[in-house]
Amino acid sequence: MIQAGIIGGAGYTAGELIRLLLRHPAAEINFVYSTSNAGNLISDVHQDLLGETEQKFTSEINTDVDVLFLCLGHGNSKSFLEKHSFSAQTKIIDLSNDFRLSPDADFNGMHFVYGLPELNKAEIENAQYIANPGCFATAIQLALLPLAQHDLLQHDVHVNAVTGATGAGTSLSPTSHFPWRDNNFSYYKPFTHQHLGEIGQSITQLQNNFDRDILFMPNRGNFSRGIFATAYTECTEDLEKIKELYKAFYKNAAFTTVSDKELHLKQVVNTNKCLIHLHKHKNKLLITSIIDNLTKGASGQAIHNMNLIFGLEESLGLQLKAAYF
Amino acid sequence: MIQAGIIGGAGYTAGELIRLLLRHPAAEINFVYSTSNAGNLISDVHQDLLGETEQKFTSEINTDVDVLFLCLGHGNSKSFLEKHSFSAQTKIIDLSNDFRLSPDADFNGMHFVYGLPELNKAEIENAQYIANPGCFATAIQLALLPLAQHDLLQHDVHVNAVTGATGAGTSLSPTSHFPWRDNNFSYYKPFTHQHLGEIGQSITQLQNNFDRDILFMPNRGNFSRGIFATAYTECTEDLEKIKELYKAFYKNAAFTTVSDKELHLKQVVNTNKCLIHLHKHKNKLLITSIIDNLTKGASGQAIHNMNLIFGLEESLGLQLKAAYF
Amino acid sequence: MIQAGIIGGAGYTAGELIRLLLRHPAAEINFVYSTSNAGNLISDVHQDLLGETEQKFTSEINTDVDVLFLCLGHGNSKSFLEKHSFSAQTKIIDLSNDFRLSPDADFNGMHFVYGLPELNKAEIENAQYIANPGCFATAIQLALLPLAQHDLLQHDVHVNAVTGATGAGTSLSPTSHFPWRDNNFSYYKPFTHQHLGEIGQSITQLQNNFDRDILFMPNRGNFSRGIFATAYTECTEDLEKIKELYKAFYKNAAFTTVSDKELHLKQVVNTNKCLIHLHKHKNKLLITSIIDNLTKGASGQAIHNMNLIFGLEESLGLQLKAAYF
Amino acid sequence: MIQAGIIGGAGYTAGELIRLLLRHPAAEINFVYSTSNAGNLISDVHQDLLGETEQKFTSEINTDVDVLFLCLGHGNSKSFLEKHSFSAQTKIIDLSNDFRLSPDADFNGMHFVYGLPELNKAEIENAQYIANPGCFATAIQLALLPLAQHDLLQHDVHVNAVTGATGAGTSLSPTSHFPWRDNNFSYYKPFTHQHLGEIGQSITQLQNNFDRDILFMPNRGNFSRGIFATAYTECTEDLEKIKELYKAFYKNAAFTTVSDKELHLKQVVNTNKCLIHLHKHKNKLLITSIIDNLTKGASGQAIHNMNLIFGLEESLGLQLKAAYF
Repeated sequence: MIQAGIIGGAGYTAGELIRLLLRHPAAEINFVYSTSNAGNLISDVHQDLLGETEQKFTSEINTDVDVLFLCLGHGNSKSFLEKHSFSAQTKIIDLSNDFRLSPDADFNGMHFVYGLPELNKAEIENAQYIANPGCFATAIQLALLPLAQHDLLQHDVHVNAVTGATGAGTSLSPTSHFPWRDNNFSYYKPFTHQHLGEIGQSITQLQNNFDRDILFMPNRGNFSRGIFATAYTECTEDLEKIKELYKAFYKNAAFTTVSDKELHLKQVVNTNKCLIHLHKHKNKLLITSIIDNLTKGASGQAIHNMNLIFGLEESLGLQLKAAYF
Repeated sequence: MIQAGIIGGAGYTAGELIRLLLRHPAAEINFVYSTSNAGNLISDVHQDLLGETEQKFTSEINTDVDVLFLCLGHGNSKSFLEKHSFSAQTKIIDLSNDFRLSPDADFNGMHFVYGLPELNKAEIENAQYIANPGCFATAIQLALLPLAQHDLLQHDVHVNAVTGATGAGTSLSPTSHFPWRDNNFSYYKPFTHQHLGEIGQSITQLQNNFDRDILFMPNRGNFSRGIFATAYTECTEDLEKIKELYKAFYKNAAFTTVSDKELHLKQVVNTNKCLIHLHKHKNKLLITSIIDNLTKGASGQAIHNMNLIFGLEESLGLQLKAAYF
Repeated sequence: MIQAGIIGGAGYTAGELIRLLLRHPAAEINFVYSTSNAGNLISDVHQDLLGETEQKFTSEINTDVDVLFLCLGHGNSKSFLEKHSFSAQTKIIDLSNDFRLSPDADFNGMHFVYGLPELNKAEIENAQYIANPGCFATAIQLALLPLAQHDLLQHDVHVNAVTGATGAGTSLSPTSHFPWRDNNFSYYKPFTHQHLGEIGQSITQLQNNFDRDILFMPNRGNFSRGIFATAYTECTEDLEKIKELYKAFYKNAAFTTVSDKELHLKQVVNTNKCLIHLHKHKNKLLITSIIDNLTKGASGQAIHNMNLIFGLEESLGLQLKAAYF
Repeated sequence: MIQAGIIGGAGYTAGELIRLLLRHPAAEINFVYSTSNAGNLISDVHQDLLGETEQKFTSEINTDVDVLFLCLGHGNSKSFLEKHSFSAQTKIIDLSNDFRLSPDADFNGMHFVYGLPELNKAEIENAQYIANPGCFATAIQLALLPLAQHDLLQHDVHVNAVTGATGAGTSLSPTSHFPWRDNNFSYYKPFTHQHLGEIGQSITQLQNNFDRDILFMPNRGNFSRGIFATAYTECTEDLEKIKELYKAFYKNAAFTTVSDKELHLKQVVNTNKCLIHLHKHKNKLLITSIIDNLTKGASGQAIHNMNLIFGLEESLGLQLKAAYF
């Protein structure tokens, strides 16, 4: 069994990792590090796990685990890895944005591969260090990469996406206070969301002449899980042709599927799936992309990367039943 | 007291009209026509009204009322007015889309004025027949008209808006079934929503050279009331200058206010207000516009039009307490 | 115009008071005291008020106002009134639980009357100091007092009530964090909620032989506003007889109405109403009582008390349009 | 592989069965019968299954399957089994209430065992026909059976439970219309819910002297999945003693766990778990019991029964990741 360690165990992404690893047939949780919760039962924090594990948070780190997941706040992975070193064979999968961009990808002798399996599968399979993509970034890249592969992103791209409140993490905040968020809607960081960097980087990887704007409006929805993203751009190709390109691009994807029907968010909530829908109106191509921000957009993708690194079947431990309702 | 009649009394917009008229200091409900509910208490259908009115639905029409509100499904206002005629002094305010577009505005000798007070106040004050604007159309026009007034809509406009489930009416439907809609998100009629016609018409009224696209994505939110709309377009004017134009445009508006802060939907829910926020990112001007779809987007605006027609103070009966939470 | 001051202006009950007073035809806001927000616009905190008031929070107190509303946390009203004294004619309406119970009702020469108008109208009309009832306490008392008046509470009473998240206030807390509360349900303080004291006190006021238990389960609902309370007890009286007693008890009540039909919470949300429904199953009498926790259960009732004290029409400024959806 | 057939494939419980069977390591779906959807893709109705199965609904029945699940409306299982007969070795698991009560348990030569594993495991293991328990009935029995086993139900039991909207099924109805249900709360069938029969039958099975009332208030919550049930009764036993009895009763239960901490519904949503919490206030014992109405309360329990009948590991295919948020 692959021995897995988790750093920063009290947050949402760590909780999801624990849920997934507890059911993973080829991996097991070696330790969950949380200084604030050391000594407490994991199920005291992630309370749905009552009856499933008696394991406790620890303040001790086993530097010899097979795989280490970093679930720290953005900026904290670097400082953590500066203070702690791990065995030469330990694989590290970082869920923050610390190592996603090329200029950050090499750190203390480690080279981080951007862990979007639909883009970089071969590289991931041979990687030791993974920068796990952002949640919005995952949804939006999966909407756009097939176009980039064929140099079809020749105009500005207009992206509107809505995320659930888990996207803002466990920290209490006014915009996650129930009386505020319930039945409400708002946006934040219009056109300047931090995920634009990794999106642009991946697009350029496939279409290096891409020089247009991605105009991205991120919104806060009054639901807990999931990202519903739409993107549209000018495109003169025929819709059927485009559908073929997308289906070809995702032919071997374990979790991404092109739907011929319009989508609604709950088709993917609590799964590791991404569903894509294509629609054409005059010369505008509209792409819809939906994921669960915590699974495909974070911890599920991290496990997917783990599976790839260790040569396991891609979907191992990730064939999750949708909650759907 | 102004005597008001309501046709099609069992729907959401009729319910809101009844709520508003019951509290209106200068008007009273003469009759509420509903063939399917004739003889039943109004409060049996609009159940929050228990204890507030003992009035019943009727299948008889008083053709002599001062003002008549048509709350019929789209297409049914015309057929209703073909079958029923009213006193020469009866004002008619139609909440459907039957008479909103110029080619439809003259019907059986009646001339319908498009009832957006921020655009057509003087004409409304002298009108006898009003075509009350659509809900999305209200939010989006209020976002764009100040630009049109100054010929500043010179590029495509990208609109994304989310509406609550009341927007789909009282008819039971799969996309309003709670287990489907709860914590869900989806779009419908991408780029082809029927309100684009009236939006374009009003913009052209102010800026007759407007020839660009309005790319409108309408979405279904998992809340009950309200519309959160964003629109962006290329604009080289300075943000402060734009703010001034908007504030000038809405200087005498009874319900529309420019906010210096970012908005969230619940600021206007259950009120007749529209709040507008302006933001600039590079050469993109982002306008946010929020309304309640049932009040400002329908019945509240209808009462506003009634107030204007009868020479009453504009906000009479419309200074509603926000629910806010 | 009655000059009103508000102490503790940033919380939910203060916000509701401000909303109500801004529309009240016989009162106006003299000052809103908040040390933490002094100098800021009221509409910066209560953001739905944008466009309705330019007033600011202040750290200065006008000790000469006609009426003072205390919107402080429980325990803080006493300490506030120890530090500040007001003009001899200033009426004080306290929304905390500091003065609701008889042993607490006399404080620094002030005598606080328990401000439940359905129970103590005459006393309130002559009062200078009011202890405004608790939200759960209001709903539950209105369910039970007509029975108490006729000595019909002879058995244990089983109460189950659900409150919205605004009941827990503006302070951020784990059980009001959206990802936790959304689509969730839980109880708290089973059988020991602090409102049991005032409920028992009022029942005994009408039925001094009452010596049975009130078994009260308070629950957290995943909605923002409102209390849905059910109570049942053994009762051999005929249902029709009981309905008559309730209708007689509430005959002159401005806001409380007996419904012949089953109730659902949104019939009263964002209104000052209480709806009561009576049902009999064998020898069990089931009473349902629904209110909005912030209006009838707090600030609306406070305004109702103000109206009574100043000899105004009871429902002045309180005929609120339900949000309903 | 166990070949499974599903009758009535378009409803919520059938959808959950399909989701579970698609992931079950020892069973596979042989056919899904739905006359109204015959020929359509299963994923056209259960749309989260897109990308997971290409199977279609059929109007043909394989009478030779190993196990047949009946997901028909109450009353329709009997008429279905009158019209169709199956191979002598086909196991039948009925999810309706047609065969749950003793007088209904023998039908056309088939004897239906009440399929609550915590109560009847041995009998289920040897059964060929199973009457799968109701959702409320499951939660409430699991709250009360350990007391019944020790003859400790000597007083009336007061039960309050809230269910999600999926409990009302896929049929469109006014109380499941989003604008009605959203942020609302209501009860139905007070004290007369049809599950009282099976609850009483199971209690009597363990405590045949039980002759008190179970006063059950069922409520509609504004969430989609889950049942939160509380029950209290007079009990003089010590809390620690009671906890021991419950832990002993559920010692070998695959999915039911006693929690030392207070519960909230989302701990079990989208899992097959039941969590139980015990609390004592004076002489009142309060038992909380939470389940997901569609899994543990319906389809998950049906699979559990299948596992038992076929001698499989109890939790096979049922170790589901909680959605939790």
